[in-house]
Amino acid sequence: MTRGNVDDVPTGAVDENMAPSTWQQALFTPRGIALIGVTNDASRLSGGPLFYLRKHGYAGPVYPVNSRRESVQGERAYASLADIPGPVDHAYILLNTDDALDAVRNCIGARVRVATLLAGGFADAGPEGLEKQRQVAEAARAGGLRIVGPNSLGLVNFHNAMPLTATPALIRADMIPGRLMVISQSGSMMGTLISRGHARGIGFSKAISIGNESDLTVGEIGAAFADDPETEAFLLFIETIRDRAAMTRFAELAHRQGKPILAFKLGRSEAGRQMAVSHTGAIVGSDRAADAFLKHLGIVRVDHIETLFELPALIGRRGPPKRRGGAVGVVTTTGGGAALVVDRLGTLGVTVTPPSAAVLSALHTKDVVVQPGQVLDLTMAGTRYEAMRAAVETMQAAPENELVLTVTGNSAEFRGDLTVRPIIDATGDKPRAVFLAPNAEQSLKLLAEAGVPGFRTPESCADAIAAYLGWTGPGVRGEPLAPKLAATLRDGLGSADGTRNERQSLVAFATLGIATAESAVMEPDAEPPSIGYPVVAKILSPDVPHKTEAGGVALRIGSPEELRDAASRILARVRDYKADARIEGILVQRMETRGLIEVLLGYRRDPHVGPIVTLAMGGVLAEIHADAAVRMAPVTVAAATEMIQEVASLALIRGYRGLPRGDVAALAEAVAALSRLADLEEVAEAEINPLIVRHDGEGVVAVDGLIVLGGGDPA
Amino acid sequence: MTRGNVDDVPTGAVDENMAPSTWQQALFTPRGIALIGVTNDASRLSGGPLFYLRKHGYAGPVYPVNSRRESVQGERAYASLADIPGPVDHAYILLNTDDALDAVRNCIGARVRVATLLAGGFADAGPEGLEKQRQVAEAARAGGLRIVGPNSLGLVNFHNAMPLTATPALIRADMIPGRLMVISQSGSMMGTLISRGHARGIGFSKAISIGNESDLTVGEIGAAFADDPETEAFLLFIETIRDRAAMTRFAELAHRQGKPILAFKLGRSEAGRQMAVSHTGAIVGSDRAADAFLKHLGIVRVDHIETLFELPALIGRRGPPKRRGGAVGVVTTTGGGAALVVDRLGTLGVTVTPPSAAVLSALHTKDVVVQPGQVLDLTMAGTRYEAMRAAVETMQAAPENELVLTVTGNSAEFRGDLTVRPIIDATGDKPRAVFLAPNAEQSLKLLAEAGVPGFRTPESCADAIAAYLGWTGPGVRGEPLAPKLAATLRDGLGSADGTRNERQSLVAFATLGIATAESAVMEPDAEPPSIGYPVVAKILSPDVPHKTEAGGVALRIGSPEELRDAASRILARVRDYKADARIEGILVQRMETRGLIEVLLGYRRDPHVGPIVTLAMGGVLAEIHADAAVRMAPVTVAAATEMIQEVASLALIRGYRGLPRGDVAALAEAVAALSRLADLEEVAEAEINPLIVRHDGEGVVAVDGLIVLGGGDPA
Repeated sequence: MTRGNVDDVPTGAVDENMAPSTWQQALFTPRGIALIGVTNDASRLSGGPLFYLRKHGYAGPVYPVNSRRESVQGERAYASLADIPGPVDHAYILLNTDDALDAVRNCIGARVRVATLLAGGFADAGPEGLEKQRQVAEAARAGGLRIVGPNSLGLVNFHNAMPLTATPALIRADMIPGRLMVISQSGSMMGTLISRGHARGIGFSKAISIGNESDLTVGEIGAAFADDPETEAFLLFIETIRDRAAMTRFAELAHRQGKPILAFKLGRSEAGRQMAVSHTGAIVGSDRAADAFLKHLGIVRVDHIETLFELPALIGRRGPPKRRGGAVGVVTTTGGGAALVVDRLGTLGVTVTPPSAAVLSALHTKDVVVQPGQVLDLTMAGTRYEAMRAAVETMQAAPENELVLTVTGNSAEFRGDLTVRPIIDATGDKPRAVFLAPNAEQSLKLLAEAGVPGFRTPESCADAIAAYLGWTGPGVRGEPLAPKLAATLRDGLGSADGTRNERQSLVAFATLGIATAESAVMEPDAEPPSIGYPVVAKILSPDVPHKTEAGGVALRIGSPEELRDAASRILARVRDYKADARIEGILVQRMETRGLIEVLLGYRRDPHVGPIVTLAMGGVLAEIHADAAVRMAPVTVAAATEMIQEVASLALIRGYRGLPRGDVAALAEAVAALSRLADLEEVAEAEINPLIVRHDGEGVVAVDGLIVLGGGDPA
Repeated sequence: MTRGNVDDVPTGAVDENMAPSTWQQALFTPRGIALIGVTNDASRLSGGPLFYLRKHGYAGPVYPVNSRRESVQGERAYASLADIPGPVDHAYILLNTDDALDAVRNCIGARVRVATLLAGGFADAGPEGLEKQRQVAEAARAGGLRIVGPNSLGLVNFHNAMPLTATPALIRADMIPGRLMVISQSGSMMGTLISRGHARGIGFSKAISIGNESDLTVGEIGAAFADDPETEAFLLFIETIRDRAAMTRFAELAHRQGKPILAFKLGRSEAGRQMAVSHTGAIVGSDRAADAFLKHLGIVRVDHIETLFELPALIGRRGPPKRRGGAVGVVTTTGGGAALVVDRLGTLGVTVTPPSAAVLSALHTKDVVVQPGQVLDLTMAGTRYEAMRAAVETMQAAPENELVLTVTGNSAEFRGDLTVRPIIDATGDKPRAVFLAPNAEQSLKLLAEAGVPGFRTPESCADAIAAYLGWTGPGVRGEPLAPKLAATLRDGLGSADGTRNERQSLVAFATLGIATAESAVMEPDAEPPSIGYPVVAKILSPDVPHKTEAGGVALRIGSPEELRDAASRILARVRDYKADARIEGILVQRMETRGLIEVLLGYRRDPHVGPIVTLAMGGVLAEIHADAAVRMAPVTVAAATEMIQEVASLALIRGYRGLPRGDVAALAEAVAALSRLADLEEVAEAEINPLIVRHDGEGVVAVDGLIVLGGGDPA
């Protein structure tokens, strides 16, 4: 086993004693397997594992444990773990929810290293189940036993033919050992990926259904196998992120090994539905946060389920594309089929480059007839091995192409020798993708065996290409907050939980280096402060979250006299609105009118993924269009600049249709500055709304905003 | 052959004489076929048709024609059409571009009824090719010969085993006769659909590659076979709409027969790219127009290629859903697999209803154990025939479900008897959809044979469900323009091509019944008109398209005196800007300030699909977000109300987040009114920008706009 710079991976030694470093071996290469509660009926979930292990000829020791039967599926059943003659590293507990805890205790007693639990009815079934899960996890932790699940369909090691699983996907007679490791929160999706991959000739190294993650998580398992020599890429099927620290470690280790992690994550449609508490939350939604997290870790997220196993061959070991926004060159023998993928690539924002003059002339010298157009169309050249191979190689060599897509017509179904073989044989070191327009199982298998990425649908093909070209690798952490600034901020904000008033918040933003509108606090009945007019006046009160509604705001105040009057009226109205409101003064703020647009800048510590920063247009339309960019905080100024590119509405300050450009650089600096709040753990949430963006060179200015400390809820 | 109310379909009689009513028979049931220019090499496109006809055992007379060989593929070759002993109804011309015209002439001489042309190099190859195509079409028209193509891979009649085609998809040994007719503008996509359908056990009745449509078009062919008893649904693969009148007729006939038309149309990504001339055009893009056209015809547009042949079984003969926004009930044996489809349905705006208390209690009495949640999850019930069947039948019977989706887990791969069979056997008359999470070819074929719609990917399954539930059937034409109004409009607008000035345009909008801002025209140096102040003043000149740029606009004018001054300044500035500008006066318009939002209302006569009406938010953001609704004009008020629902930004006047509601009813009336311009053929384009929408009950008011007559280009 290669080691890399990893320090907590299996040592390779097998030890009769329980050692914390060897649960990884117990998972996929146990010295002995116990099937606790295995039943006689192989068609039941609880009978499947024994049947599959035997069907696939697993060579290691397997011990059926069933206290009620002398034999199971024709084999001797042991009454208990204690009766088993050899060491048992891994027990698959196939009992129901209520019997599982006892079985876990027995495992601890028998010095089993890993127990995988089939039964659901734990955290997946409400508070009562959660309590049962807590008991199982606690017992295991105390006893040094690691747990997979509960609610796990088990795991498969394809290289030692060990289907320690209950998924009916293993009814098949054979399995294809490969280089992809599946880690799935859904057991049935583990089976689905195995089944669909198998049909395509795509093999796996290992697969694991991790269920409720009561102990071992996606991240911990991934980190443990980051240097697995049998694994070249990781495929995740996830619904939520339960352990971000472990996920982060997993991503770092895999990246160091040059192994990509691909994820299909459910929940795209939740973002639009979730009615989160704060404004920022409503725009972001939890899926946006998870998306930012995956992107930051350099994990490639795909949108179509089959892309998950189709994409790794495209990536190979080459890592993220060198150039951003790289273009795709297309070779085809079918105009219609190529258009299917090109059209869809267009909707995903991927550019297709037409073949250059150099490409056309190089092919001309090889007597390859080409139709002019957006793609290299070989229809006129006929279905010939030489023409196809020359076309692919020439496009591979062309410097303008970042990736070469080949789309084959109906000949791929029966004449793979003429259409698919030359693609496989073609030389070139750029990523390639092949879409077969007809149903062409044999050609897909040919491609899979050769390690050339073949796609079954135009939709997943375009998804894969867009995912690869949009892959930026692990994100760079932005500048830390200078310790001196952190101290100043802490002094200003104090430590009590809750929402800071607008004045305190604006001071904090200014401390972070964000320009704020000139302001002063005027005590009730005090003299107007010296400040440039016109001004606005706003009540400062922790008890008046909706200032305008309470009559606590006055705009366009032209002089100190007007301000004095306005302040009295504000105080009177607020007292009418809420007699016992605590008044902290009146914020007097210079009116800012030179803005081009107003944006919303948000920060929050997401419960699942940690600190995130959000940029959106101001106003309710941004929310309606879900038009926001989200990143893990802190961000670099470069990443903040990318965020500005990502928000569609911000075309308004990017020079769209000859409109005046806004100060994009100052905006990027402000985004990065706000994101440094990530270094102040006590800050739960912050929002500047609006931040006025002025003309290019004139900066930005924060006009209103709030900071929330602790677990509080912003007003 | 059933007749319906159709008057131009084949009579069924076979006639030795050329009769205009029998080209339809010659297409798919010819008395004799000539293969002109067929070659000896069966692997070449020009050799394929003979090979496929023989391979599939076509029983009718086939005559190879090749003047250079005595035999082709072991059969006697005729030197010319004249040598053929029997009647030839259909000739497939397999010659190259330059020889095709002669062959067409020969066909006319031999009284062939339909000639299908394989060669490309016509309209698909620039102006020179277009001229060749024109010659072919003209000769054919003059000679009474109908043409399929050029650039056609031919056609297939699956019921008489007649693969008169060059697509290598017919290398297969068998074909599956079915009830779906494919009409494709792309030849290779015809082959792709046949290949992919075949692999799934889905058969076709007929398939035709119509190529460049120099004569017979999608619409004309579809209309001719609308009452084909072998066809129950039409599948279109289209890139453009060349003959909207024929398409409309086809759609009407098919609708009358209760046969759905499904379309996959390329070009979704062009909309965003096209830089059209007028503002409306830029928002709409041609794909939006085509989309509105298909919707108006009651054609169901799908987004994924395989949905095209997967969806018809779901639709059956039941027509569009009775209820709008109907909900989906889901039965599953795999939480993860169901989530794949449900998540995607969410992104497409389709609602999934959780099983009702009545459903749960009905299943409880049948001892079917169900997990609580958003979907009916049978995981706990085990994989049992009875449980699955009871669950599907109970959900089918539940009144809240418009459609029932069943998602099966990995057992569907090897245990179709337990998972797929009960779905097939389940009674219930609502549309159903089945997604199989694993790779399960046999189960998919079982479903196809039973006519139950099975889906291979979660993406196409969600696509199909969303397409079906969004299907509204043929659109209702809005009210015609009253003849009196039409006459008044014609008087006011005149007949000369070109752009009408703002005053004339506003008067026309008022004539249509749209409230316009009070306005008057002030002659240069004349006295201010009597009008309510404040007002705005704008230059009226056909030579000053960009009024603001020319200094031709003044806002917030408070009195007649100010107006006099403003008018002089405007005239001076405009003369500075363009000395010889023709001045038609100054438009004086009451300032409208009571608006909630501003919208853009557009109308244009699209070159491909005809009159369309567009509704969007005003301002550049609507364009950035491509946030517009488009319909064929004229629209009913009900359809206009739907358009308002469709524009995301108009949430601002629909009561979103407690914001004040706008006058949606008045806006719908205005959309419908503008759309009646469709009855004035001389109007090429019209735009109201902005139309101010006031609070509910306060109406709308047009503030600025233009009308363009003839082929003109709006300023």
